[in-house]
Amino acid sequence: MAVYTDIDDVTLSALLDAYDLGPPLAFKGIAEGVQNSNFLLETSKGRFILTVFEERTQKEHLPFFMGMMGHLASKGFPAPLPVPAKDGNPLRIVHGKPVVICTFLQGMSPRRPDIDQCRALGQGLGRFHVSLGDFRMRRPNDLSIGAWPKMWEGRAAEADALSPGLSSQIDGDLEFLKANWPKTLPGGAIHADLFPDNTFFLDGKLSGVIDFYFACSDFLAYDLAVCLNAWAFERRGEFNLTKGRALIASYETVRRLEPRERAALPLLCRGAAMRFFLTRLVDLAATPKDALVKPHNPLDYAERLGFHRQAKSPEDYGA
Amino acid sequence: MAVYTDIDDVTLSALLDAYDLGPPLAFKGIAEGVQNSNFLLETSKGRFILTVFEERTQKEHLPFFMGMMGHLASKGFPAPLPVPAKDGNPLRIVHGKPVVICTFLQGMSPRRPDIDQCRALGQGLGRFHVSLGDFRMRRPNDLSIGAWPKMWEGRAAEADALSPGLSSQIDGDLEFLKANWPKTLPGGAIHADLFPDNTFFLDGKLSGVIDFYFACSDFLAYDLAVCLNAWAFERRGEFNLTKGRALIASYETVRRLEPRERAALPLLCRGAAMRFFLTRLVDLAATPKDALVKPHNPLDYAERLGFHRQAKSPEDYGA
Repeated sequence: MAVYTDIDDVTLSALLDAYDLGPPLAFKGIAEGVQNSNFLLETSKGRFILTVFEERTQKEHLPFFMGMMGHLASKGFPAPLPVPAKDGNPLRIVHGKPVVICTFLQGMSPRRPDIDQCRALGQGLGRFHVSLGDFRMRRPNDLSIGAWPKMWEGRAAEADALSPGLSSQIDGDLEFLKANWPKTLPGGAIHADLFPDNTFFLDGKLSGVIDFYFACSDFLAYDLAVCLNAWAFERRGEFNLTKGRALIASYETVRRLEPRERAALPLLCRGAAMRFFLTRLVDLAATPKDALVKPHNPLDYAERLGFHRQAKSPEDYGA
Repeated sequence: MAVYTDIDDVTLSALLDAYDLGPPLAFKGIAEGVQNSNFLLETSKGRFILTVFEERTQKEHLPFFMGMMGHLASKGFPAPLPVPAKDGNPLRIVHGKPVVICTFLQGMSPRRPDIDQCRALGQGLGRFHVSLGDFRMRRPNDLSIGAWPKMWEGRAAEADALSPGLSSQIDGDLEFLKANWPKTLPGGAIHADLFPDNTFFLDGKLSGVIDFYFACSDFLAYDLAVCLNAWAFERRGEFNLTKGRALIASYETVRRLEPRERAALPLLCRGAAMRFFLTRLVDLAATPKDALVKPHNPLDYAERLGFHRQAKSPEDYGA
């Protein structure tokens, strides 16, 4: 939630010379995204979001992200469309960093999604997966099960400091997940970080999906598991079964889950909670105490793991 | 350059119920201003800037700022217009803090103003003063000469740490300013902080003036002195006489300086440089070393003071 890279009026004008967008009419740094710097840009051609990719984004994966957004937008899915420069390439370099200009999406992000928003999101996720059915680029999920042991290494004391006894539960979870993680399930391009603040709603409809910088190739049902964690829990790890049911049922109006996907849901939900618990634990340790950007609390996901540990079947999630 | 107060979708919708602006279509925190939280708001009625006034803004002065912006906008000057709620009041309370919604102004802020921009700014400042000729509210300038001794108290060592010997120069400046500060000059409502980042330009014209939260009642020529400091210096305290001349001459196409104002210019410029030197010195000491918002360097203004100390006459500024 910050602007790390400064772009002045002269630099911007020089950049826009490479596009067919006309001169800038307005330009403001916006507090969106924690990894990159984002600016709202207005020209006579409309409004756009200009993103400067900072250190944390792996540059070699930008063509995957750009390709995915472009593919979705071309199918009418409300994703930002990377605008090509006159040379056809949507990526340029400013101050040594890659930059992209995308179309602007209207809408408001829900802080606490209600049941109608969960329903709209479920259907949107289904459309997302179906729209990407013929997207051919691949990017491995580098925050999935193979990465977790390394992220967890040496952090037992940090976890126990958050909640006494937590580290042995995490050890047990990781062991269980390793022994039971599905070998094959229907796969494809997934968003992998579809939290409410990465969505916009307008008139009750999903009007935008943004922040594709964790997108990758993985099990489609894992994306649904991320959404169940992010959309269907109340405070303190309480699962709202009505929201879970709405999310899954509306997803299935667009893309029917196979029986093996449905069966794998409890495990995938547990894995998704583990992924966010671990990245938050790592981020917390890396953030200075007085930083302006407050890190997310890992305990929110430790508490979700508590629910997943006890869940017995897909029915416990509303499937 | 940060968003200190969080406004979620539900809070925003409740706030907008008090206005005739329709429901929100987009809402983004923007990195503008260091004192308050600012958001870009879009509704079916257009685009607006929503400002939440944080601790540093003195609440009792908000009616003065609102009145001044409204007065300017009503005269066709490109200032943001505070939008009244249905009850006629432009100020509301959100999370215990005052909030205002103003009209959005297009344009780009110049990082290093060129001669044409200095000329446009001079004329704009003239129009600013003339437009406010019949504005009747008053607010004392609480960062003028009466406040400087207290701001300077106990900071000699900090100044000498920045530049050896600086503190005795500042002592001398303050003594000289106190002995020679004008008793009376044509006065009125001034902006008092009209730096390039508080202006927008479009097609070479001044398209917006923002950030009225230092505005006050003072000598009109003091506002011109602030602008000469902020617009007509190059790096390291080098005064660009061509820019100074353009700024003053274009100001005078709208409002002619009286002989006593012209004569006071060197002193007023020295005072204005002192004001920014001191507030920057205070801010620097108050800012943690690893803060995300980097404080301005007081030395920029210590170097301008060096120029002003040697200036002999209004001609040295291009007047």
